[in-house]
Amino acid sequence: MDKKRFEKQIRFIVEIDKLKTIYRQSVLIEDNTRYENDAEHSWHLAMTAILLLEYSKDANKLDMLRTIKMLLIHDIIEIDAGDTYCYDKEANRDKAEREKRAADRIFSLLPDDQAKEFFDLWNEFENQKTPEAKFAAVIDRFQPLLSIYYSQGYTWKEHGITSDQEIERNKIIQEGMPELWEYVEDIIRDSVENGFLRE
Amino acid sequence: MDKKRFEKQIRFIVEIDKLKTIYRQSVLIEDNTRYENDAEHSWHLAMTAILLLEYSKDANKLDMLRTIKMLLIHDIIEIDAGDTYCYDKEANRDKAEREKRAADRIFSLLPDDQAKEFFDLWNEFENQKTPEAKFAAVIDRFQPLLSIYYSQGYTWKEHGITSDQEIERNKIIQEGMPELWEYVEDIIRDSVENGFLRE
Repeated sequence: MDKKRFEKQIRFIVEIDKLKTIYRQSVLIEDNTRYENDAEHSWHLAMTAILLLEYSKDANKLDMLRTIKMLLIHDIIEIDAGDTYCYDKEANRDKAEREKRAADRIFSLLPDDQAKEFFDLWNEFENQKTPEAKFAAVIDRFQPLLSIYYSQGYTWKEHGITSDQEIERNKIIQEGMPELWEYVEDIIRDSVENGFLRE
Repeated sequence: MDKKRFEKQIRFIVEIDKLKTIYRQSVLIEDNTRYENDAEHSWHLAMTAILLLEYSKDANKLDMLRTIKMLLIHDIIEIDAGDTYCYDKEANRDKAEREKRAADRIFSLLPDDQAKEFFDLWNEFENQKTPEAKFAAVIDRFQPLLSIYYSQGYTWKEHGITSDQEIERNKIIQEGMPELWEYVEDIIRDSVENGFLRE
């Protein structure tokens, strides 16, 4: 065993425990008592991808192992960069720069080959060129949409979000999982009727 | 789209949000302020498996997609059955029965083919026959060991656990990832010296 290599791996496994302390904008569905954190969210994304794969327009050519790795890894940079709320214009200005710095620091804790694998997966997700990255991004929109809808629009109400904003934001679902779009429109319409979203 | 099928999938995705409320015995490494929950734990297991695969004695023949699915899914039954502390003899008496009932209810929310896939993955993990199930179980021992060690033995001190108990419990690491055993012995020895574990 290469001890230096192993120590780096352990150091990284311990470091990413911090993802459990990075809180997002969605709350738990059951009782809305607290915000969801990035580690839980990443798990829920992987589960959602496994369950809804058949609706991806690329279902037959996707490498699911790479897709799941991407989903599990893509938010790790938020340990340093924090969760940036999608509708926070100010915070989104330097988001890319903050996240790049975070990736540099955190992935570099790993041995070179694994650091490269993680960098590549993270870049692949960010660049949105491959079927795996596109499907992962669609899932990363759909799971929060579902969570917020099933928590009676908690986050939308908090920030006064409109149905147009959500339609615009979730359009990539229409491209990546076209069969799901009718359902997305249904829950957005229902959310307006129930006062979860503003018209 | 088969609407009934899709509704079952959504119902399940919403149901498993509850895994974020099932708390385990280990605490967060950074500040020990709260117990880790099953959703975070499942994410951390998948990450640990990805990072330490090379130390598995079956590294070359493992199906990693199936291993990761198993790790992400295997604790879902705790939504109904609860987390059973490994050293709680009383609670362990009816654990298998409680977990079987939970699997029946929860996985049956899914369309038949996916319910079967999840049952099969859960049973495969429980039966410990395949290389994937064995590696998953080893990771499911190693990640908590690491978490508890790096949180200054929080859980061990709380329950007065001895080094012999931990050696016994973690022996499967020696079988599944033999190169790691020296490290496990080191941290157990160090834990005794630092008062994290009783002699």
